[in-house]
Amino acid sequence: MNAQDAVPFLDYASVLVFALTGALVASRAQLDIMGFVFFATFTGIGGGTLRDLLLGQDPVFWVGRPGLLVVTSLAAILVFFTAHLFESRYSLLVWLDALALGVAVPAGVDVAMTAGAGPIVIVAMGVITGTFGGLARDTVANELPLVLKQNELYITATFGGAVTAVALIWLGVSGFWALIVCGITVFALRAGSLLFGWSVPTYRPRPPKTKG
Amino acid sequence: MNAQDAVPFLDYASVLVFALTGALVASRAQLDIMGFVFFATFTGIGGGTLRDLLLGQDPVFWVGRPGLLVVTSLAAILVFFTAHLFESRYSLLVWLDALALGVAVPAGVDVAMTAGAGPIVIVAMGVITGTFGGLARDTVANELPLVLKQNELYITATFGGAVTAVALIWLGVSGFWALIVCGITVFALRAGSLLFGWSVPTYRPRPPKTKG
Amino acid sequence: MNAQDAVPFLDYASVLVFALTGALVASRAQLDIMGFVFFATFTGIGGGTLRDLLLGQDPVFWVGRPGLLVVTSLAAILVFFTAHLFESRYSLLVWLDALALGVAVPAGVDVAMTAGAGPIVIVAMGVITGTFGGLARDTVANELPLVLKQNELYITATFGGAVTAVALIWLGVSGFWALIVCGITVFALRAGSLLFGWSVPTYRPRPPKTKG
Repeated sequence: MNAQDAVPFLDYASVLVFALTGALVASRAQLDIMGFVFFATFTGIGGGTLRDLLLGQDPVFWVGRPGLLVVTSLAAILVFFTAHLFESRYSLLVWLDALALGVAVPAGVDVAMTAGAGPIVIVAMGVITGTFGGLARDTVANELPLVLKQNELYITATFGGAVTAVALIWLGVSGFWALIVCGITVFALRAGSLLFGWSVPTYRPRPPKTKG
Repeated sequence: MNAQDAVPFLDYASVLVFALTGALVASRAQLDIMGFVFFATFTGIGGGTLRDLLLGQDPVFWVGRPGLLVVTSLAAILVFFTAHLFESRYSLLVWLDALALGVAVPAGVDVAMTAGAGPIVIVAMGVITGTFGGLARDTVANELPLVLKQNELYITATFGGAVTAVALIWLGVSGFWALIVCGITVFALRAGSLLFGWSVPTYRPRPPKTKG
Repeated sequence: MNAQDAVPFLDYASVLVFALTGALVASRAQLDIMGFVFFATFTGIGGGTLRDLLLGQDPVFWVGRPGLLVVTSLAAILVFFTAHLFESRYSLLVWLDALALGVAVPAGVDVAMTAGAGPIVIVAMGVITGTFGGLARDTVANELPLVLKQNELYITATFGGAVTAVALIWLGVSGFWALIVCGITVFALRAGSLLFGWSVPTYRPRPPKTKG
């Protein structure tokens, strides 16, 4: 299995998991079932759609594979009827979002590589594919975007994974394994941030003064 | 008159009516006249622009017909000088938005059909053309997006109309009549929701327990 | 030096200055350094990216010149380590945004002219290139978008500059000088608004009644 063969699988997986997070946000907003389908769909396909538009992929991936919209709709219906079974929908949302990041970033890296992009653009497409679906979801729903959460690795996780993929390929690792390690890196950084408080220093308006 | 001839008319009508809603939101935000033009324009052309980008239409519709931007600007100026005449600008906004939905959804369906898309993508383009201009308008203006309003048919109305159009064409109805019925369906569902409280069940975090 | 030669320079300058504003917004949100890079980057390239997508430029400008993403990242790092030196980060943000407008509008006008667009589309692309990066920045960060600020020239400044450029070229002025005057016009209108309160009348829900 080479990297190119992995794209449809990665795209399906990331669309599915992001769709679940979109439907969970719809449940927090107490929408009706078509509202769930709407949120699940644009969250699921948002990041990859922006990536394809920027790379000039014509048409964007889901126009050529409309079965993906069936996937997002089924995900929405599933969440509509089962979300009440979970004690903390927010915690479920955050963890599914972490999982989706771990699949979407390698999907973005893979598409950009296949399109012949250079390393900087590959990293950018990994980050964009990972983050923009969730960003659109949170912005439309008037929730605080996860990218704005302080003291959590989010952008850093996607960036770390994308850079890892590019570095491994540069070192001669096969595309397939580079994508696997990329996804694990993204998820591990994000999970470590959620479980153990891993973070990098944030900006502080007034740094502590050194005494003279 | 066949369906293809209807596109420019539908696009002009939906751009005009959405532009009026954008200008009304600008009036609620008490902007100056160029702020009105700005809101009217991106609200008017937003949904169709996203549809064209996704379908790979090059250039997007209003770049080829810049008279549409004159239409949105005139709509903005009209609202700037007359909005104070209406007792409830919010009610006017909601009804114009309903009317715009009823024109924009068939416009999106028509463009997608003409571009040779399959049924799922046709429905998606109808919903996108109907909803994204208003969604961008409300998000930029920091107002609660109409798509988030509970107990109202909004996404459901656009979806219902788009599915109706696809079904009618599949049954052999001409494109022209399918689009007419599509638009009436969208508007009727939305109007019924506003006037008579029509709705579909929304998600409730804690469903009533059945007694044991 | 003709107008076409100016595009890369204008794009670099507007990307850099908008990137600084994006990083300042990240500092107000107290993000970590990758959050700064993320905000700086999409603010820096947002307006020009939308312009290129609408004009069907393939690929968008920064995909072909990824050094621009290095510029936005360096701008983010610079702000991360120096923003605390400024007494009022908000005031710095507003003035840098004004400067960025003054560079981005002529950049948008120039690209649209080079692409062979007519006068209305040229003006629209100038306004879009100037405003959408900052609009995305403020919307994602949950700040009041500068385009919504009352009694300030913002959209009007970008529009005034873009119309000036088109008028000068129509009068036979060279593209280079038309772009220079365009940029100065945008900045002067915006600066006059910030310093001296220049404004155009805003919409008022209830205009003062004339006594009978």
